[in-house]
Amino acid sequence: MCQGFQFAGLASGLKKKGQKDLGLIFCEQPAHAAGVFTRNQVKAAPVMLDMQRITAGICQAVIVNSGNANCCTGAKGMRDAVSMGRWAAEGLDIAEKHVLVASTGVIGEPLAADRIEKAVPDLIKALDPAGISNFAEAIMTTDTVPKIVSQKGNLNGVPFTVTGVAKGAGMIRPDMATLLCFIMTDVVAEPSLLKEVLVSATRRTLNRITIDGDTSTNDTALLLANGLSGVTVKGDAAIKAFQDILDAVLLSLGKLLVQDGEGATKLVEVAVRGAESECAARQIADTVAHSNLVKTALFGEDANWGRILGAVGRAGVPVETEQIDVFFGDVRMVQNGLGCGRKAERAATEVLKKPEFTIRIDLKSGNGKASVFTCDFSVDYVRINADYRS
Amino acid sequence: MCQGFQFAGLASGLKKKGQKDLGLIFCEQPAHAAGVFTRNQVKAAPVMLDMQRITAGICQAVIVNSGNANCCTGAKGMRDAVSMGRWAAEGLDIAEKHVLVASTGVIGEPLAADRIEKAVPDLIKALDPAGISNFAEAIMTTDTVPKIVSQKGNLNGVPFTVTGVAKGAGMIRPDMATLLCFIMTDVVAEPSLLKEVLVSATRRTLNRITIDGDTSTNDTALLLANGLSGVTVKGDAAIKAFQDILDAVLLSLGKLLVQDGEGATKLVEVAVRGAESECAARQIADTVAHSNLVKTALFGEDANWGRILGAVGRAGVPVETEQIDVFFGDVRMVQNGLGCGRKAERAATEVLKKPEFTIRIDLKSGNGKASVFTCDFSVDYVRINADYRS
Repeated sequence: MCQGFQFAGLASGLKKKGQKDLGLIFCEQPAHAAGVFTRNQVKAAPVMLDMQRITAGICQAVIVNSGNANCCTGAKGMRDAVSMGRWAAEGLDIAEKHVLVASTGVIGEPLAADRIEKAVPDLIKALDPAGISNFAEAIMTTDTVPKIVSQKGNLNGVPFTVTGVAKGAGMIRPDMATLLCFIMTDVVAEPSLLKEVLVSATRRTLNRITIDGDTSTNDTALLLANGLSGVTVKGDAAIKAFQDILDAVLLSLGKLLVQDGEGATKLVEVAVRGAESECAARQIADTVAHSNLVKTALFGEDANWGRILGAVGRAGVPVETEQIDVFFGDVRMVQNGLGCGRKAERAATEVLKKPEFTIRIDLKSGNGKASVFTCDFSVDYVRINADYRS
Repeated sequence: MCQGFQFAGLASGLKKKGQKDLGLIFCEQPAHAAGVFTRNQVKAAPVMLDMQRITAGICQAVIVNSGNANCCTGAKGMRDAVSMGRWAAEGLDIAEKHVLVASTGVIGEPLAADRIEKAVPDLIKALDPAGISNFAEAIMTTDTVPKIVSQKGNLNGVPFTVTGVAKGAGMIRPDMATLLCFIMTDVVAEPSLLKEVLVSATRRTLNRITIDGDTSTNDTALLLANGLSGVTVKGDAAIKAFQDILDAVLLSLGKLLVQDGEGATKLVEVAVRGAESECAARQIADTVAHSNLVKTALFGEDANWGRILGAVGRAGVPVETEQIDVFFGDVRMVQNGLGCGRKAERAATEVLKKPEFTIRIDLKSGNGKASVFTCDFSVDYVRINADYRS
């Protein structure tokens, strides 16, 4: 996908049903690196380890397990995270400090690290420039499909690539929401610049998606740049070109995550405009996108716009109810705070049957606008999460 | 239940299946009155009407319909709310301004007010001092049982009564959360004092319950005092005696609401202690009590304490993870941020099978404490809310 990177994924025995649960990314030469991490104060051991190591701005490998979050696991958890990195470093014959570690799965259970240790040699043997789908599969938890997005850009006629892999179907909230995301690129860029564009892209993409409003303890997004394309990201035009591609890749990944949200049957953009500020628009979009009542109505394909106005009204932002318009797709369902009647409702119901659509809320009070991507809330979400550990 | 009050409830045809949907409370003599209302900026017409009328501090009747919230219904909605009050006033031969109005049900649909007008004479004929259960039934929406709590107190040997009726099984969040609640008492009290004790009681009771985290547009709690007991609430001791009984009635009603929450199978108290302040404790209790992941695990009877710590960590309050203890009932499941192992888990799972229990979270950082009542989040919640309008 992206030159100079190799991938592997296999089953080490952490997952009960023998699915792939251990993945590796190897950069043939050390890459510049930047990361963003969960804002949850309860942080998994690998997150704490990576937050230290990433400060050097160099990474040559990332080892990732699913099936166990290695979180709330105390001193043993930290030892296990360090060991995972060391086993990879030794097998690959690279510096231990250049290995990053990530975990995802059940919180609070001790990691069966011996299984990982035993599997690392085979994992390294399996490394392959074309192995990305094995890697993408190995980091899945309740995801039903692997998520990989790759896009090419070019700068002064020279092409470069940005490839991203992500997982996460629950515990997703727009507060650095991604669970795990790894982005590989072949541009030349300083770690500090990588950090800047990654934070900026995250704000516009992964921080605008929600599935269930819970923030993971393991959220990690890493950006690795190995420089092999020879394209240097420096100066406004180059930064913008790179930023645009990175944004596009992360937005696509974010939508894939929501689409594959636990039990989700619909991908819905909640787009607020006409707010007094972007911040106000965002607060309203977030409140609507998180409302269980709105989300269950979406699942029921019920154009229950009253619940949308109810959520707007409790968002903590001053609004003029009798000015608000609400659209499902292109169908105006609410005009100046009042329903547009049966005909509009029938048309709106047709929109709701689609797998992907936009709910547009126009407050007509200013120029602030913001979008959030959410999904519906289905019976299966509850089923999946009631028995997650069994 | 409480001397000097009469009640009625019947089916006026607002609900599709012919259930009771129109209720009336009549105070044989004008009562002093106070109210608290939703903080949602989108307010139903009857809420706006009551907020005006309650300022006079007098009420002699309350007319309530279910099946339609009369919210987001514009000028017609306000005319309908006023008409409901007028029909009751004319039939009862009392001052129109002394009638309060409440509605609950679907938001955004025009009220079939003609059905109410036609039913009011029968409603008045049905008034009965023993009619409270008909009234309680008539205000139900997705509630499966009527909720009535009555308690006696006494002051200097003279008994008085506080009787409350409430409804609400969804759109319940601890931000003046009750949907509809009517409290009748026979004490003598000034309206301003009634307001004070009602606000205070609400803060400790109805504002400490959550079902789904959405705030209703129609929340209304009214306290009516007709003075017939001759007991005067004045002076610290009397106020405390009255406050205690009112608190007890509202706490019982609040628990009944959560217990009957949409799809709920469990009533769970989330009790936080050892926080740096009451406010911090409350914020953590709220976050845990609202977490969909915690609530679905409760439904699955899964002692998934990692999700509880995950919610604690994202509550926006500084915490020391490695100090936190978590108990399910009396079973310590987490000690100093780490799980207490299989044996504790088995015992905790037994607690989770009960219909009512406490999750205790001890932060060991101070003296702040707070409790919130919540319920589990079941497949039926989604089912109920996906098809609410059909």
